[in-house]
Amino acid sequence: MERIYFDNAATSYPKPAQVCESMLDYIQNVGSNVNRSGYKDAYKAEDILYETRQLLCSMFNGGDCKNVIFTANITTSLNIVLKGLLKSGDHILTSSMEHNAVMRPLKQLSSTGISYDNIPCFPDGSLDTSALHSMLKPNTKAVVMTHASNICGTLMPLSKIGDFCIENKLCFIVDSAQTAGLFPIDMEAMNIDVLTFTGHKSLLGPQGIGGFILKEHMIERIEPLISGGTGSISHTLDIPAFMPDRFESGTLNIPGIYGLNAALKYINENGMENILKKELRLTEAFLDGISEIPEIKVFGKDDIINRAAVVSIDIKERDPSDIAYILEDTYGIQTRVGLHCAPTAHQSLGSYPKGSIRFSFGHNNNLEEIKYCIKALKEIIYGI
Amino acid sequence: MERIYFDNAATSYPKPAQVCESMLDYIQNVGSNVNRSGYKDAYKAEDILYETRQLLCSMFNGGDCKNVIFTANITTSLNIVLKGLLKSGDHILTSSMEHNAVMRPLKQLSSTGISYDNIPCFPDGSLDTSALHSMLKPNTKAVVMTHASNICGTLMPLSKIGDFCIENKLCFIVDSAQTAGLFPIDMEAMNIDVLTFTGHKSLLGPQGIGGFILKEHMIERIEPLISGGTGSISHTLDIPAFMPDRFESGTLNIPGIYGLNAALKYINENGMENILKKELRLTEAFLDGISEIPEIKVFGKDDIINRAAVVSIDIKERDPSDIAYILEDTYGIQTRVGLHCAPTAHQSLGSYPKGSIRFSFGHNNNLEEIKYCIKALKEIIYGI
Repeated sequence: MERIYFDNAATSYPKPAQVCESMLDYIQNVGSNVNRSGYKDAYKAEDILYETRQLLCSMFNGGDCKNVIFTANITTSLNIVLKGLLKSGDHILTSSMEHNAVMRPLKQLSSTGISYDNIPCFPDGSLDTSALHSMLKPNTKAVVMTHASNICGTLMPLSKIGDFCIENKLCFIVDSAQTAGLFPIDMEAMNIDVLTFTGHKSLLGPQGIGGFILKEHMIERIEPLISGGTGSISHTLDIPAFMPDRFESGTLNIPGIYGLNAALKYINENGMENILKKELRLTEAFLDGISEIPEIKVFGKDDIINRAAVVSIDIKERDPSDIAYILEDTYGIQTRVGLHCAPTAHQSLGSYPKGSIRFSFGHNNNLEEIKYCIKALKEIIYGI
Repeated sequence: MERIYFDNAATSYPKPAQVCESMLDYIQNVGSNVNRSGYKDAYKAEDILYETRQLLCSMFNGGDCKNVIFTANITTSLNIVLKGLLKSGDHILTSSMEHNAVMRPLKQLSSTGISYDNIPCFPDGSLDTSALHSMLKPNTKAVVMTHASNICGTLMPLSKIGDFCIENKLCFIVDSAQTAGLFPIDMEAMNIDVLTFTGHKSLLGPQGIGGFILKEHMIERIEPLISGGTGSISHTLDIPAFMPDRFESGTLNIPGIYGLNAALKYINENGMENILKKELRLTEAFLDGISEIPEIKVFGKDDIINRAAVVSIDIKERDPSDIAYILEDTYGIQTRVGLHCAPTAHQSLGSYPKGSIRFSFGHNNNLEEIKYCIKALKEIIYGI
């Protein structure tokens, strides 16, 4: 049975062939650590590292590429930024569609005198921007928000929130886990102060590499969560004040950075807009197909305006886990079921506590797979 | 010119062929995330993840393998452990041979009411254990110590420190960056409460994967530094209390874990003791060879008892950077020069602030390379 992978919101698969080749080239032929040695192979790795910072910076209009920081994943990035920025007495706003990568750090911080509020969302997942001003407090310091829901794909109005942050002198932190590499994100135009990203979803790189990009004025405002050897100013026990060393201690995931480097070039060569167009065409076909099945309820929006290629559904009187099991066992269709690490979001969408079956498409999927999946759902619901 | 890699203390190279193959297999054929999906390929990755925890646990006699936590690197591990364990008012002991992965977090913590002292070391890098008792304070909570100096390779007496910690009810945290995979480390016999490790040095895996192993009684004592989605108890914003989820938020570096898995099997198949024997034979030959050159001063021990395969030297009236440059440029010999992220250790060894040229050998090096290097050093010092 052929494998049909509809779990791209968890991690994209397959990766471009270049990703593997690039990682292999590093491990087999280069191998050296960076910032820690002064010989030719170490410089080769440093060139790729620098180029990868540049590629990311130019994709997101991030300013100076020394402010691109690599981490293990976007969860680590969000922890570094939130825990390094917020101090006791601060208040932060977020949406009610957030992933636990945002919500759990905020919940954890709430025991240290930091408070947060969730801006309400409509049942289609979109933000109730009319609530923004009334939620502002004298001690509100920042807004942290996902760009797209990992459950239903609905996009958040980043530009509008960016304007709101400028008006009210708030830092704007964006979680781009579901959108980076697919949707245009412009840190300058959208007034984003910190953009956190993960390498292994729409950026098409391997797991193990993520990061964040800081605007210059944020550098000193964030106390590093992790400190250690940087290969720089080794005579002192102080954390270097300069970038990227201030936030990059310990050996980097260099194979991961080589993989991400190749993935970014792949995206640039193929065109982000073409990849997105393909994914949304598949999403539209899927939404059209399931609209003919009255037993299926779609959580969130039922069109492809302002959304990513993620569709969550419920099937009347059926257990989501059973359906997902049959989809994989009988049809080879791989989905994800449950609460997707986002309980608050499921509450907004009305899918809590049952959760949903999530279908998330990549540009390597095709229309035949979508049609086959719709046929499979009909067979499961109506019997063969 | 052939490349002669003597920088294994920064990262081991080459990696076993299996490491690459295993990573490639995951990226090309499996690809799935773990703990987040319920289909067959996700289970395959979960099996490897579980097996890797078991392999590490059995290598270090770590007890329950659910207490093996993966991180991006040992620096992150040490930050999680030190910052999660120590509270304002606590005191911690460490050695004067530590890497900045230990020293910079301690220095950073010292601004929050946590104090530390460095147990003195002799000029050969060995610990002055006679000083231990006098350095104990009523508020001493823990000892954190490297197993071997990254500059001169001298081993620390882990068992003795373990006994001291038991007697005085201190937590014992070990930094095994330079020894894991080479020297026997037994968490039970040595009374180690937390063993931090990196995957890319003597464990022969790729960069980007490290971790730590906790004894059961430490779990609740350490507040997680990083929180987020775990794929478990997704209905709550609280950090899961159970292991490994308590300390593993966000997507893991699964390609890295596949690589480490293959590396651990390689070490088990070849025998840790054989790999060590080979490395020490090379170290001995190098020490013998340079002992004939009076212009060379060895920092630390000049024998192979109680040491790892790392040798730091100075050449009379010559700049270490110049020597390292000529070694690579003329002879293809790659070393590392400077303070190696360990200024306190260089102070103990008497090599501060000039630093040293460091030669660190791996079991893939051979005697011919050692002889060639000694010949090169003689040519550089005496002229050709």
